[in-house]
Amino acid sequence: MTDPNPPNAGPTIWIVSTGTEILQGHYPDTNAQWIAHELMVLGFSVERIMAIPDDHTVLGTELGFACRRCDLVIMTGGLGPTADDMNREAVAGVFGVELVEDADALADIEGRFAKRGWPMPPSNRVQAQFPSGAKVLPNPWGTAPGFVIAPPEGSDLRANLLALPGPPREMRPMFAQIATPEILARFGDGRTRLRTLTLHTVGLAEALLNERIDDLFGLDPAVNVALLAGKWRVDIRLTLKGENDTENEALAEKWRGLICERIDPISIWGEDDDEFAGVVGSLLRERCQTLALAESCTGGLIAKQITDVAGSSDYFAEGFVTYSDEAKMKRLGVSEATLAEFGAVSAETAGEMAAGAREAAGTDWALSVTGIAGPGGATREKRLGLVFFGLAMPDGRVKTRRIQAFPGRAAVRELSAVTGLDILRRGILRFGG
Amino acid sequence: MTDPNPPNAGPTIWIVSTGTEILQGHYPDTNAQWIAHELMVLGFSVERIMAIPDDHTVLGTELGFACRRCDLVIMTGGLGPTADDMNREAVAGVFGVELVEDADALADIEGRFAKRGWPMPPSNRVQAQFPSGAKVLPNPWGTAPGFVIAPPEGSDLRANLLALPGPPREMRPMFAQIATPEILARFGDGRTRLRTLTLHTVGLAEALLNERIDDLFGLDPAVNVALLAGKWRVDIRLTLKGENDTENEALAEKWRGLICERIDPISIWGEDDDEFAGVVGSLLRERCQTLALAESCTGGLIAKQITDVAGSSDYFAEGFVTYSDEAKMKRLGVSEATLAEFGAVSAETAGEMAAGAREAAGTDWALSVTGIAGPGGATREKRLGLVFFGLAMPDGRVKTRRIQAFPGRAAVRELSAVTGLDILRRGILRFGG
Repeated sequence: MTDPNPPNAGPTIWIVSTGTEILQGHYPDTNAQWIAHELMVLGFSVERIMAIPDDHTVLGTELGFACRRCDLVIMTGGLGPTADDMNREAVAGVFGVELVEDADALADIEGRFAKRGWPMPPSNRVQAQFPSGAKVLPNPWGTAPGFVIAPPEGSDLRANLLALPGPPREMRPMFAQIATPEILARFGDGRTRLRTLTLHTVGLAEALLNERIDDLFGLDPAVNVALLAGKWRVDIRLTLKGENDTENEALAEKWRGLICERIDPISIWGEDDDEFAGVVGSLLRERCQTLALAESCTGGLIAKQITDVAGSSDYFAEGFVTYSDEAKMKRLGVSEATLAEFGAVSAETAGEMAAGAREAAGTDWALSVTGIAGPGGATREKRLGLVFFGLAMPDGRVKTRRIQAFPGRAAVRELSAVTGLDILRRGILRFGG
Repeated sequence: MTDPNPPNAGPTIWIVSTGTEILQGHYPDTNAQWIAHELMVLGFSVERIMAIPDDHTVLGTELGFACRRCDLVIMTGGLGPTADDMNREAVAGVFGVELVEDADALADIEGRFAKRGWPMPPSNRVQAQFPSGAKVLPNPWGTAPGFVIAPPEGSDLRANLLALPGPPREMRPMFAQIATPEILARFGDGRTRLRTLTLHTVGLAEALLNERIDDLFGLDPAVNVALLAGKWRVDIRLTLKGENDTENEALAEKWRGLICERIDPISIWGEDDDEFAGVVGSLLRERCQTLALAESCTGGLIAKQITDVAGSSDYFAEGFVTYSDEAKMKRLGVSEATLAEFGAVSAETAGEMAAGAREAAGTDWALSVTGIAGPGGATREKRLGLVFFGLAMPDGRVKTRRIQAFPGRAAVRELSAVTGLDILRRGILRFGG
């Protein structure tokens, strides 16, 4: 029989969120996501995330099951003062112990109310109760202390259980400052140092990328390769399991090289936390160049993305959202003849829009977009999703490009914004000096 | 022994998401949230949401466990063409059947590529494989068809399993249009009829709203009242549990009235699936009036929101993203003296921007925004988050307003967009004829 947990594999960790509102879909479970990410950064991996209702029977069954299956259960929520906060009681039941009141915790809670000049409502008193044998984790950010409890001697339970309050503004600092040392004290030796490196690509289909890097998937057991397809871009995520940080750095360097041998490096627009519009903006800032935008079907979306970035006023002068033909003529000098002969959705109009925006705004670059986002506006010749781009460059030349996107108004607009920014990005890298 | 599933309780449903990226905390599990909410609206409740890794052993164990514990397992993800997409195989293993290729599905996938003039990459062929006995669910939105499979005769499995692709823009329409009829056909009798009515408010703090409607919370056991605070708006969600649709309609009517007695009805901007910018656009369309925008700190965000709405070209003429002072003067006629005396972030500049945009674009209305989104640009007199709005009205009058938002670039921009649209909305309702 193989041991499901070899000594160096690290603890198996489950995150359990309680709350009917998650199961009814009112919110996504962002607490679990946040904790999972913190654990990954600490070098731990999470085997299971689950959400269960505030129901005494279900809580007892599921917690009991979880505490027999893994080494650490981290649960959030259910520590408030009201009747549907039943996690204290459920944990005591699973661990076969009583709830006892903690005098220090009670004093803390009373103190929080006293500071605001209020008496403590009687219902808050239950928040000072903990399963006997648990270590109380103080909560300077709210009235719900957490706790951690180890499996009692001789029981069939395997897991330590860590209980934290649900409100993120209490849970997050508690996890980082108070719970993390407890986890490291109990499981610090078992963790594998992990580093992730994410390479963001644009302009390559997932299947094509997959084919190109196919030989890399099983190449090195210390490197896990995954493709994450987003709406319009594919990320290559490497999880590096070197012995230490230096080794992970070397692995990152080596694997960046391996991937760049297989795909055109210009397709990789950034790494890790880079934002697409921020990367494009940095290229402009480095060159002290400026940008104007002329948008029709994207209706301001590209300007919005460019100005999402702090400091974008360094390179972004202005945007024209020319939704009507009249605005295209008046603001950008698109000729009536061009609109009549080729239509508003044409390479000719896109080119004149870009040239006109560059001229009017007096910038180095101008990018234009005009297309059929739908649902209306399509003809036999011009289908939904047909989009033209114009790029006016510092030397006055104008290039145009067309794409045919899959229909769907939001999808056409998003793909148009990304494609437009990518046309600009590649233009700057090739012709921007 | 009590039956854990009395006959009228409806099916027990688990949602299983697969993907290492969820367990590493790269994304919250929004697919599970979205499905849970859809199920609630359909009258079903979800007993468990869980996320498990893309690991063949774990997938097999956990799916087998889930399929013995509940009546319906809905899983998302893992249907792509790459090596880490192993859900098809895992389900076949659990249900004890082979994978077989479906000719129609294969033709569909090939057809999607052919439409774009590409050959199908060989790796996509696996997407036409399904566990034997499964019903294929076509996916007109992408290359990954889904499927639904019932427990084989004589097996110890209890659950129907529904597999859907992970990308939300494929999964959502598939769930709504293709999977929902399958669920209703199998479990339609067991659901409790529910109706939710969500009233969207803007401009009221959650605590204030809570005070105003405090007496309604326990008023009627057939009506559950909840406040859902979003980033900048609060929703009042009513869950109505009438005996039938007619009774739910009557309850909705009555409770709309009860709430409007307690808060100013103009604070309620819409219901259920209404979108804020769509509601504002409808007010313009009904009046055959047109709009121009002049944005500084929001940088195109309001234009983007207005043009998110299909058909917005009926009332939206154009937008000016005047990020620089020069653009404000050249495009909108803001006077140099105003900029020098009051600054770009001032009521005076906001007013001139709105008046200038209305004049230049020849529209009935123009809305302007100028503010300090940060992180730079603040002074002792003008703090981060200070934002001014101008509204130029059909009769030529211009009103201005200021807000002081909490700092944070994205938050200031979002609140500015909402506040701007709300100023326009209230302006149209009061002065728009």
